[in-house]
Amino acid sequence: MYIRNTWYIAAEPGELADRPIARTMLEKPVVLFRTEAGKVVALEDRCPHRFAPLSLGRVIGERIQCGYHGAQFDATGACAHVPGQDLVPPRARIASYPVLERHGYVWIWLGDPAGATDTSSIPEFLYRSGDRGWDGGYGHFESIGANYNLINDNLFDITHAEYVHPESFGGEEMRLYRRSKPGTEYVDGEMTWSATERTIVFRMRSLNMATGGPFYRWMVASSLGRDSYPDPIDLDMEVSWGAPSYTSFLLNARPAGQPRETGVEVCNMHAITPESAASSHYFYRSVKNYGDAELAKVFVNGVRSIFDQDKPLLEAQQRRVGHVDLFDQHPVSFGGDLLQQKARHINRRLLEREGDDGRELGAALSAGGKARGSS
Amino acid sequence: MYIRNTWYIAAEPGELADRPIARTMLEKPVVLFRTEAGKVVALEDRCPHRFAPLSLGRVIGERIQCGYHGAQFDATGACAHVPGQDLVPPRARIASYPVLERHGYVWIWLGDPAGATDTSSIPEFLYRSGDRGWDGGYGHFESIGANYNLINDNLFDITHAEYVHPESFGGEEMRLYRRSKPGTEYVDGEMTWSATERTIVFRMRSLNMATGGPFYRWMVASSLGRDSYPDPIDLDMEVSWGAPSYTSFLLNARPAGQPRETGVEVCNMHAITPESAASSHYFYRSVKNYGDAELAKVFVNGVRSIFDQDKPLLEAQQRRVGHVDLFDQHPVSFGGDLLQQKARHINRRLLEREGDDGRELGAALSAGGKARGSS
Amino acid sequence: MYIRNTWYIAAEPGELADRPIARTMLEKPVVLFRTEAGKVVALEDRCPHRFAPLSLGRVIGERIQCGYHGAQFDATGACAHVPGQDLVPPRARIASYPVLERHGYVWIWLGDPAGATDTSSIPEFLYRSGDRGWDGGYGHFESIGANYNLINDNLFDITHAEYVHPESFGGEEMRLYRRSKPGTEYVDGEMTWSATERTIVFRMRSLNMATGGPFYRWMVASSLGRDSYPDPIDLDMEVSWGAPSYTSFLLNARPAGQPRETGVEVCNMHAITPESAASSHYFYRSVKNYGDAELAKVFVNGVRSIFDQDKPLLEAQQRRVGHVDLFDQHPVSFGGDLLQQKARHINRRLLEREGDDGRELGAALSAGGKARGSS
Repeated sequence: MYIRNTWYIAAEPGELADRPIARTMLEKPVVLFRTEAGKVVALEDRCPHRFAPLSLGRVIGERIQCGYHGAQFDATGACAHVPGQDLVPPRARIASYPVLERHGYVWIWLGDPAGATDTSSIPEFLYRSGDRGWDGGYGHFESIGANYNLINDNLFDITHAEYVHPESFGGEEMRLYRRSKPGTEYVDGEMTWSATERTIVFRMRSLNMATGGPFYRWMVASSLGRDSYPDPIDLDMEVSWGAPSYTSFLLNARPAGQPRETGVEVCNMHAITPESAASSHYFYRSVKNYGDAELAKVFVNGVRSIFDQDKPLLEAQQRRVGHVDLFDQHPVSFGGDLLQQKARHINRRLLEREGDDGRELGAALSAGGKARGSS
Repeated sequence: MYIRNTWYIAAEPGELADRPIARTMLEKPVVLFRTEAGKVVALEDRCPHRFAPLSLGRVIGERIQCGYHGAQFDATGACAHVPGQDLVPPRARIASYPVLERHGYVWIWLGDPAGATDTSSIPEFLYRSGDRGWDGGYGHFESIGANYNLINDNLFDITHAEYVHPESFGGEEMRLYRRSKPGTEYVDGEMTWSATERTIVFRMRSLNMATGGPFYRWMVASSLGRDSYPDPIDLDMEVSWGAPSYTSFLLNARPAGQPRETGVEVCNMHAITPESAASSHYFYRSVKNYGDAELAKVFVNGVRSIFDQDKPLLEAQQRRVGHVDLFDQHPVSFGGDLLQQKARHINRRLLEREGDDGRELGAALSAGGKARGSS
Repeated sequence: MYIRNTWYIAAEPGELADRPIARTMLEKPVVLFRTEAGKVVALEDRCPHRFAPLSLGRVIGERIQCGYHGAQFDATGACAHVPGQDLVPPRARIASYPVLERHGYVWIWLGDPAGATDTSSIPEFLYRSGDRGWDGGYGHFESIGANYNLINDNLFDITHAEYVHPESFGGEEMRLYRRSKPGTEYVDGEMTWSATERTIVFRMRSLNMATGGPFYRWMVASSLGRDSYPDPIDLDMEVSWGAPSYTSFLLNARPAGQPRETGVEVCNMHAITPESAASSHYFYRSVKNYGDAELAKVFVNGVRSIFDQDKPLLEAQQRRVGHVDLFDQHPVSFGGDLLQQKARHINRRLLEREGDDGRELGAALSAGGKARGSS
């Protein structure tokens, strides 16, 4: 069901500012808090005494104190103090989960603790910096009623934009992506993709777009301080996916004919952490290399309102899918699904490696190639 | 559980005016829509590609387009177009259900397709026309939390009116119905009933009603343009039930002593379509042969407010009944239940014919007779 | 699961003033009503005819009439009248539960009817009277989402007050209770406890309290007509617990050095009736021997607002505990749990006596003793 031996995003740093928070991940109830010294701690959210959630308690120095009877637990999950008695029962201990802060997020390891030292599952592409300062904002949806794979499919799939997001990402340029299979309707455009053991990246370039692309067009307009930009534009897009559930869209847009180096860039990053088989936490961030903090807010609100279009669809899809994994129900596949299926395949392989009952999606997909050529 | 080889009401025509609708019937998710050419289509509400409900999509000419990735399906359930590719996977096909329009409703057949050509399960009594034009309005309750048999019992049972609807249908005249069994308290009144293989009709006549019958009294008053009618009235009532879940009340009321032909008539029609074992769709219509459109609205709103009295009772009854059919829990029966039990018996027989595990309700009830005599 | 052969509180008398009420207890749906003659009756809340809840009907003289078809049931649960027929089917009968009124409550017996004559399970300590008139008010929480044992633990446990109710019961004086085990931090104070087969009483005395004890301090202030009382006070507390779920706090507070006889007294009484494995009814009353009706209201509202602090904690605790009894999940115990565990032990023994599958909590606790000495 869940890939356990991997790092997941547990929280935005800002969520831990003043009190412990409760978050169920991979069906485990976890309490997250920051100690007085600034260390982030993740513990089983259940006091071993009477099973009250520790997230209802409060932070006392380097420990969390249960809100019911005052027992205190340190970062290792050991009970360090019981009010009214000198001895602490040795069994008074709860699970502690490895956590770390990286790329502007708090990450958690819920698998075999021995593997936590390997942080290679934290994708580098979730971090953007550079000569021109990137800035932007956070946002997240707490508990969307859909399995993480369905959200994952959705994010690493630009072909739905034409139907679900016609007024933002949904221009015809999205159809280029479909060209990774024979029999396409649309022509032109440069698309390539490549894969490693747990990542897939594809790149597309759309030059001289005279129509469509409302969002890219708006990027150009806002960078020029205008309300709209009706003339042709050039667009580069790089979509990076990392197992099990990370997707990043790096966009470069500029007036047609200008060099790529002059384009303004936006990066929208998405991360899913499974809550249960049918619900997920979805974290997103939108950063850009131009404009001010006010514009940053506009962007992050934009990402939210776009995903607000997906949310009811995903939750309705989950109701139709039910309790059996979509891919075990033999859905029909289209040409545009190639990379999405490949991502599913990578996740299946990771599950199998953990001894989970993930079944093969079909013939192994080849590990990369030039999209145009492969058809 | 469900009688499948029968026609059910799927929708009011007006519901399909501008967009597809989703409706779960007999636990099957169905999307209903009207094509540009005016044809009504019912398909499985699940795209075979990623299982998104097609009801979230839109009608394009004679097809419905999935709102997620744009695949289009025709009236047969075949996928007719996949954006971005010339070939359509042959497996891309969903169930299509026979539909037809009759008696002012859209009907659906969810059973063995071979049987759909037989439309004899659509009861003629749901249609009223004649020399004097009938008119009236539609209404429906979407998803009442009760098994269709409980609602069916309720509709084909006028003895509850005295307790649940005292200010409308609930006068003493309702008690005449109880006379189909020995030991009645009430006297007088003419009541007969007759049955066929899947219908039951009973008729009663109440002459010179000096008190009670608020609704019938109001019919007379409104036909005369008065606010009330305090003098005695004559009433004929014909209640028709058709398996599995159709009930119609034909009422003729007039000042006492006037010939029946001069009476004003109202027909309230009720149809239940099972949604799940514990929930149902309830469609109703109230038509009459006098008065204007304004009065028609008053009538249809009246039917709703009367059923609003039944709804909480039915849902509470369902909670007490739970997951086992009421009649398998050996409820006590009263004299007034005769025809209701007979209707249950007909439905059981239809279930058995489909190979379902419906159990016999008890000794077979005789197929008709004169109520007065049978006691 | 449930101790059945015991008297439970079913309702406050005021709840039965004008109409029948529905209440599920020990998973049994029950209708409670007061007849015209003033007798309280408790019946199975399900008409044997069509399973409608009788609680939707109304009281007619000494009977309750079903709101669906008008059948009437007497206090024994026998159907006494079916409209429209002279004969009543002999099977038309529902369960009737013994009820009685005592100590200002309506009590119900849901176990083996033969045992209902023994009323010794109704704890005397829920009744307070005397030379100085006690008065006070009622309150209850309908359906708290927690097993009755969790609420029971909570009420018969003053050690949580320091963390959950710091501004009322939560002063350091509460820590004295912890002294029933070795290794305590706190000193001084007199505490003793004693137990019978189904009750436990403990008493503590805290003299010359210079700080803390906001509620006791406020008792003294309000008895003197002042807003606050900053000087030292003396406190006696007697906490009585009775199986399966009764707890009473008798408090005597006065300015330090005054004789106990001059102290003002408050008694807060708590009773839990299981609704289901994960929900309960909680009745409470606060009475006192001084002040007026206005002050009585302040007290009963105070009890509610204090329990409003426990409620979210208990419901969160229940979610963590899940469907297996907390004590079968081997929680860690602290010193302050001694009497709470003893109460659990008494309830287990009662369950076992009824043939229920209650498992032993551990070594049998001795039946009493002097707390100070026992460590």
